[in-house]
Amino acid sequence: MWPDRRLTDLFDIDLPIIQAPMAGAQGSAMAIAVSQAGGLGSQPCAMLSLDQARAEIGIIRQQTDRPFNLNFFCHQPTAPSADAEQAWRKALGAYYREFGIDPDSIPQAPGRNPFDTAYCEMIEEFRPKVVSFHFGLPEAALVKRVKAAGSIVISSATSAREARWLEDHGADAVIAQGYEAGGHRGHFLRDNLASHAGTMALVPQVVDAVKVPVIAAGGIADARGVVAAMALGAAAVQIGTAYLFSPEAKITALHRQALDAVVDDSTALTNIFTGRPARGIVNRAISEIGPIAKAAPPFPTATSGIAPLRAKAEAAGSGEFSPLWSGQAANLAKPMSAGEFTTTIMAEAAALLRRLSG
Amino acid sequence: MWPDRRLTDLFDIDLPIIQAPMAGAQGSAMAIAVSQAGGLGSQPCAMLSLDQARAEIGIIRQQTDRPFNLNFFCHQPTAPSADAEQAWRKALGAYYREFGIDPDSIPQAPGRNPFDTAYCEMIEEFRPKVVSFHFGLPEAALVKRVKAAGSIVISSATSAREARWLEDHGADAVIAQGYEAGGHRGHFLRDNLASHAGTMALVPQVVDAVKVPVIAAGGIADARGVVAAMALGAAAVQIGTAYLFSPEAKITALHRQALDAVVDDSTALTNIFTGRPARGIVNRAISEIGPIAKAAPPFPTATSGIAPLRAKAEAAGSGEFSPLWSGQAANLAKPMSAGEFTTTIMAEAAALLRRLSG
Repeated sequence: MWPDRRLTDLFDIDLPIIQAPMAGAQGSAMAIAVSQAGGLGSQPCAMLSLDQARAEIGIIRQQTDRPFNLNFFCHQPTAPSADAEQAWRKALGAYYREFGIDPDSIPQAPGRNPFDTAYCEMIEEFRPKVVSFHFGLPEAALVKRVKAAGSIVISSATSAREARWLEDHGADAVIAQGYEAGGHRGHFLRDNLASHAGTMALVPQVVDAVKVPVIAAGGIADARGVVAAMALGAAAVQIGTAYLFSPEAKITALHRQALDAVVDDSTALTNIFTGRPARGIVNRAISEIGPIAKAAPPFPTATSGIAPLRAKAEAAGSGEFSPLWSGQAANLAKPMSAGEFTTTIMAEAAALLRRLSG
Repeated sequence: MWPDRRLTDLFDIDLPIIQAPMAGAQGSAMAIAVSQAGGLGSQPCAMLSLDQARAEIGIIRQQTDRPFNLNFFCHQPTAPSADAEQAWRKALGAYYREFGIDPDSIPQAPGRNPFDTAYCEMIEEFRPKVVSFHFGLPEAALVKRVKAAGSIVISSATSAREARWLEDHGADAVIAQGYEAGGHRGHFLRDNLASHAGTMALVPQVVDAVKVPVIAAGGIADARGVVAAMALGAAAVQIGTAYLFSPEAKITALHRQALDAVVDDSTALTNIFTGRPARGIVNRAISEIGPIAKAAPPFPTATSGIAPLRAKAEAAGSGEFSPLWSGQAANLAKPMSAGEFTTTIMAEAAALLRRLSG
């Protein structure tokens, strides 16, 4: 149905749909299901140790011979700063008291590992069809090695400027990540959150800015969004939140319940959970501490301070201090298996396009 | 080309495109050109006296027998508060000193008039085909009178909740105003700017929420956006910023120059110019005072405090203190007359749809 076959040809997939890598929310099961269904499944590696990543990749390789995507963060790692940490714990002080938490007892939370030489060696060993990055690209030497291993390199742009930068630095395709998207914003050139563009405005401007094919992301959760993305000039879509409604998603029951109740204006961009802006369902933590808290230390160090609040609240059956990542179109998603969703949304998109041109 | 003919039939127009009313930026000339071309031209009345509005409507009636739209604001008028005004002038104090302005000499700036009985009598006299409102709807008795006069009533929703409210209170169609849109946000039920949805996510959720036809607005400036809106379920599009590139626009040369340089992340939502959030090109005033200033008094009273700064800066050839309204897709617009733009974008949309459906 999609006249632009640049990405399906490049990725060697049947359907122009990429399952967005969602660190902490899914593993190999979802990636396998989507790749088997004809889309591009993704395995997020940012929150996995090397051994854990190898194990997941091993399972994928065992279960499917279809192409898949390995995703990495490539932020500049920030060393925890005692001052920043102190300020953050002070900002959260009232909540520590409320939950009976001793601030001095809080351990370092697991961070997010940026792509490095060790990960690169893993890529060279497994040679996945696609490697995607978030927050820009790793240093040039590593990008070169990933490409030399035969992997296609893609990354997210939140502006046409970033899309051009990615193209100039070796990206084979660019994900235009609109304001609607759930999870972490991928910006890496400017810290200008108030000026991020919605998918409708961003995709055609990115398409005009680069020669490489463009993947539309943000606010797409049913066939209407897929056809709209196609009209805007995208060669494929990347969908995240809608896959959280599948049994393959590894999210808490609290997160599932919150997703079931989401409407168009239930989410906001917040930095309180990790230190970088990410879209999640507005809960007590976001509305009282954020959505953007000046005291939140740099990514990913903010996680440590808020983790014990999350743990205490979740133990009491509350998601009010949890990062309930979601895009703005969760309400359009229908619960089904990841494979069924992949084929259904694309079949419905083809039918819608026929109706429109009817 | 548009299979959904509900709005073209309702408005009795040939092309499913509404020229967004842009108070202060256009008058009857643009409305006439668009209506003559087959779209729905709009005359904004919020910044006009009754006599001025009558004069513009008289010109429209003289120049075209095609349907047109009269637009009104329907905010709750706020009486200027001495305390709020004092706080605002204090926040702007450094700029008054920089520009050599005596804060005690600042006159009351012209406000925006909400729709009232006098305007309603004007509607009953002229009986325009369409009357559109921003910031909700006027009181029920006035809505009833407008409809009794034979005018179709439409208004903007920034959420599915607002769309349902508008439908319940008599709106015959709803404009789904996505985050990308230029000018004032139309929200009226909640003050939740951080949760406003982008057009891609908002339009299908509004379509699912109401029975009346939906008009997509925000981030649409070329044929790709028109077809995308159609795919999302809209029965028509409303386009504003792209019309500012026409000779019919009554904007300053500074505004035109700024629009020529806009890219996808050049704008932000700011309350500093009127007291209500509106999207404009980021300039010195927005980045230093806003984008959202707590000290800005309620709409429309913030205008008085900033008006003399704008005047001084503009006199010196600078738009750094001017409200340079723009949506996020200005960069997609091409300069042409308002009539030519209307027919061109819809012809290109029809061609694009044919290409997509192969």
